[in-house]
Amino acid sequence: MAHALRLSDLPSWRELQACAAKLQDASISGLFHSDPQRASAFTATAAGLTLDYSKHLLCRDSRAALLRLGQQAQLQARARDLVTGVPLNNTESRPALHTLLRAERAPAGLESQFSAVTKTRERMRHWSEQINNRELKGHSGKVIDTVVNIGIGGSDLGPRLVTGALSAFRGRIATHYVANVDPADLHSTLASLDPGSTLLIICSKSFRTEETLANATAAREWLLADGADMANLENHFLAITTNLDAAAAFGVPADNCLPMWDWVGGRYSVWSAVGLSCAIAVGWDRFNDFLAGAAEMDTHFVDTTSAFNLPMLMSLLEVWNCNFFGAGNHVVLPYDHGLGRLPDFLQQLTMESNGKRVSRDGEELDYDTAPVLWGSAGTTGQHSFHQLLHQGTRLCPADFIIPLTTHTGAAGQHRMLVANGLAQSRALMVGRGIDEARESLLHRGLTATEADSLAPHLAMPGNRPNSVITLTSVTPHSLGALLALYEHRTFCSGQLWAVNPFDQWGVELGKEIGTEVLARLTGDSSDGSMDPATERLLAQWHAAQDA
Amino acid sequence: MAHALRLSDLPSWRELQACAAKLQDASISGLFHSDPQRASAFTATAAGLTLDYSKHLLCRDSRAALLRLGQQAQLQARARDLVTGVPLNNTESRPALHTLLRAERAPAGLESQFSAVTKTRERMRHWSEQINNRELKGHSGKVIDTVVNIGIGGSDLGPRLVTGALSAFRGRIATHYVANVDPADLHSTLASLDPGSTLLIICSKSFRTEETLANATAAREWLLADGADMANLENHFLAITTNLDAAAAFGVPADNCLPMWDWVGGRYSVWSAVGLSCAIAVGWDRFNDFLAGAAEMDTHFVDTTSAFNLPMLMSLLEVWNCNFFGAGNHVVLPYDHGLGRLPDFLQQLTMESNGKRVSRDGEELDYDTAPVLWGSAGTTGQHSFHQLLHQGTRLCPADFIIPLTTHTGAAGQHRMLVANGLAQSRALMVGRGIDEARESLLHRGLTATEADSLAPHLAMPGNRPNSVITLTSVTPHSLGALLALYEHRTFCSGQLWAVNPFDQWGVELGKEIGTEVLARLTGDSSDGSMDPATERLLAQWHAAQDA
Repeated sequence: MAHALRLSDLPSWRELQACAAKLQDASISGLFHSDPQRASAFTATAAGLTLDYSKHLLCRDSRAALLRLGQQAQLQARARDLVTGVPLNNTESRPALHTLLRAERAPAGLESQFSAVTKTRERMRHWSEQINNRELKGHSGKVIDTVVNIGIGGSDLGPRLVTGALSAFRGRIATHYVANVDPADLHSTLASLDPGSTLLIICSKSFRTEETLANATAAREWLLADGADMANLENHFLAITTNLDAAAAFGVPADNCLPMWDWVGGRYSVWSAVGLSCAIAVGWDRFNDFLAGAAEMDTHFVDTTSAFNLPMLMSLLEVWNCNFFGAGNHVVLPYDHGLGRLPDFLQQLTMESNGKRVSRDGEELDYDTAPVLWGSAGTTGQHSFHQLLHQGTRLCPADFIIPLTTHTGAAGQHRMLVANGLAQSRALMVGRGIDEARESLLHRGLTATEADSLAPHLAMPGNRPNSVITLTSVTPHSLGALLALYEHRTFCSGQLWAVNPFDQWGVELGKEIGTEVLARLTGDSSDGSMDPATERLLAQWHAAQDA
Repeated sequence: MAHALRLSDLPSWRELQACAAKLQDASISGLFHSDPQRASAFTATAAGLTLDYSKHLLCRDSRAALLRLGQQAQLQARARDLVTGVPLNNTESRPALHTLLRAERAPAGLESQFSAVTKTRERMRHWSEQINNRELKGHSGKVIDTVVNIGIGGSDLGPRLVTGALSAFRGRIATHYVANVDPADLHSTLASLDPGSTLLIICSKSFRTEETLANATAAREWLLADGADMANLENHFLAITTNLDAAAAFGVPADNCLPMWDWVGGRYSVWSAVGLSCAIAVGWDRFNDFLAGAAEMDTHFVDTTSAFNLPMLMSLLEVWNCNFFGAGNHVVLPYDHGLGRLPDFLQQLTMESNGKRVSRDGEELDYDTAPVLWGSAGTTGQHSFHQLLHQGTRLCPADFIIPLTTHTGAAGQHRMLVANGLAQSRALMVGRGIDEARESLLHRGLTATEADSLAPHLAMPGNRPNSVITLTSVTPHSLGALLALYEHRTFCSGQLWAVNPFDQWGVELGKEIGTEVLARLTGDSSDGSMDPATERLLAQWHAAQDA
């Protein structure tokens, strides 16, 4: 692979700095005045999603410069590299083939991987149908009607999000998710379940993930206490793993194991057998629609020129706000209750992918990479952190995600939801001047003196950039497209920042130290070699156990 | 009230800038080497909580300067003002009396408010006991065994957090929370409930909150469809409100209304009748313990010199990291599954309180105020965003919150949780040098060339500041102390930033525009006067309805 071209080395870097300086005192509202076609000209559509990025501090000239930056970073060529299996994950010498998981046919050279994918899809369909047809029975003969997915990170956030977001499409199988090593997570989940009718899906590529193994082992105890024996655990356990030996030793026979592959990263794996709990929850055909929505976005991503390419545009906006206006965070606001966990999912996707400080060649970078991503479902955030969005001192670029219709049948109440989302997006842009604030206060009956003194508190600067992504409704198809959109946006930003978005070496050290600390807690080690703060905390922990 | 002294006007502001510059190239690990007593000298305890703030880039001299800053901002005097009812909420001309809600006796001059508090406590006890004793029956004679709290913002986040965090103390009454105006929230909650045995608590100070009223009205329909009639809604509805007339018009008689007061802000209200759902979930005595834990923290806050004062120290650290090292966010990592919603609660507490850009006198500030607060329960974040914490380019000061024992009985698995929390805190500080990374790779069998090329990806700078708050276990008492700690930290930061932490004028404009947009969706208005982007979105919404 070619030497990484750093963002600050790209020819348009300085041009964009000049653009940003010129816009520093501009107002977004003003940009609408000077460009009557702006609303439609800063809107693009793909795979059922419409991106309105007109409320950014970006004029046509700066957009053209941003698009040049994208060309210099070769986004279009890299998109093609991604889907054709070029080993873009250079630190681990392998490709990142999550697009293959939803492809309809194999790109040249990826036939054998694709054949493994289609075989796995057939097995997923089999399990999904068997369970939804109530044909799977537990150790005591009860029909399996409940699934608990045990996994963490990519083996949890994706399936948990998808199952929650598609609740309107769920069948009769109850689906639960356990991730945290805190035993309270598993205990509270199992408390109301019947072991005899519960299937556990253990998701761990290595079958060695500490948290997942601890919970799987505790869940096995729960089943054995119900009268199951090691020999008929196959009625209650599936595993998504590459490590068949470890799964077999645990009690999951090979027939109950579905594969993971080293060319799929955890945070890109919901399209693989990791999504089995979703396929069971919504049924195979709908899971297939979910894959198809993502595939449609993949095609758009690879085939569309950057000026109309949703992932590329969103990535360029991310870089624009982060690297030219200093934004250190990005807030995602789905105006949809079922998408409430989208920010959690996107935290892993974006921060694990691009939270890097060296280029993919290992050189230290002289610019910022991934911002902190956060957010929550609207309208609840309006009664919480929106105060800071409107009047705080921090630049918080926002994505509003707004389905225009509801599956609930309660169209009137859903209108209130949409109205709030559109209003917040507009309020962030227009703000309220101090004179307007004063007028409003006089209107409420305050005296001129009172209004003068209170007006600065009601005034809002506005000019706060945000995008609006609309979709007709949350369906398997549109959800697939939405997640693929953010995946590719993340990939493009990684390319612009010149990092490898597919590794995560930064999580290793904590695991290693965790093993050392655990040995100190269990008493297997007592060498006192940690830093004084950790030593004090260890002593405090031991004292608490003895109390 | 005295004219607000701005942070940048305080005498120690420049002194601290010099301190920060001097420490710019220091390492936290190095500070431990040069100060053998650091681990204990940078630890303080109150109300069962221990704050270890030794892993900040702060030496004894800079700490002394920070404490002087706190004195100049008169934190100690303001703490006393807070609990004695000085009208610190100057833009709304009233005191903020949340400490009175958990007080054992009335400070001078607050007798009448305290009498209202104790009367309300008695009424809360009454409802809690009646329901837990299964004495309350629904319209068809079924015993009430389920409570649904309908509220948003402060009427939701606090009770939801407390009920979840104290799950080990819960009785037999199931408790649910509905906040979002998205009808999917209420629908999914009610789907599995029996109207005949369900009590709804409508939490809205004004009884006018759009989201809450919409959900309450839909819930009333659900009850009426079950055969209840307007006359016996009193068996199914309580209201926490000041607006008795509106509650009565809705169908909640005055006897079923518990008061809110204008001297308690929503985000500080979990200690009031807003906490009734918690009192029902865990029983009155335990809710009382929760109040007592907070009261103990209040006493500590008012009586303790700043050098040992947990809220003051945490606030000074917040200002230190934000205003002298440029941190734009703050991550909260509870290593406890039940505290998973703490970041959501703290988002409202901190960002609604201090997300302000003018001083309490209305002057524009020339420094940053509240950072973005985010986080999630450990260890799940380790498999998601910790990559960025360790290797990203952003400064993310962290609070680890670690209970040292578990209520689950699974001590072995809980040890893994604690070990991970301690390890992450240590890893953030110590990092891993490139030589160490190279060694580790050679040790794994890589060639020298491979190790050279990969080492930069494994290296981590460390030196990332974090605090560790430990508690023996999450109990009603320690949880009360923890929440009061963050309340007072937020109050102190507001004082340092010279803002009014008790108003939230910034949320008004969005509501006003929301009403205008809703009129455009319902067709009650069609004047086309919005900005072109909103007009385009409105047209798109109308088209989606017709499709």
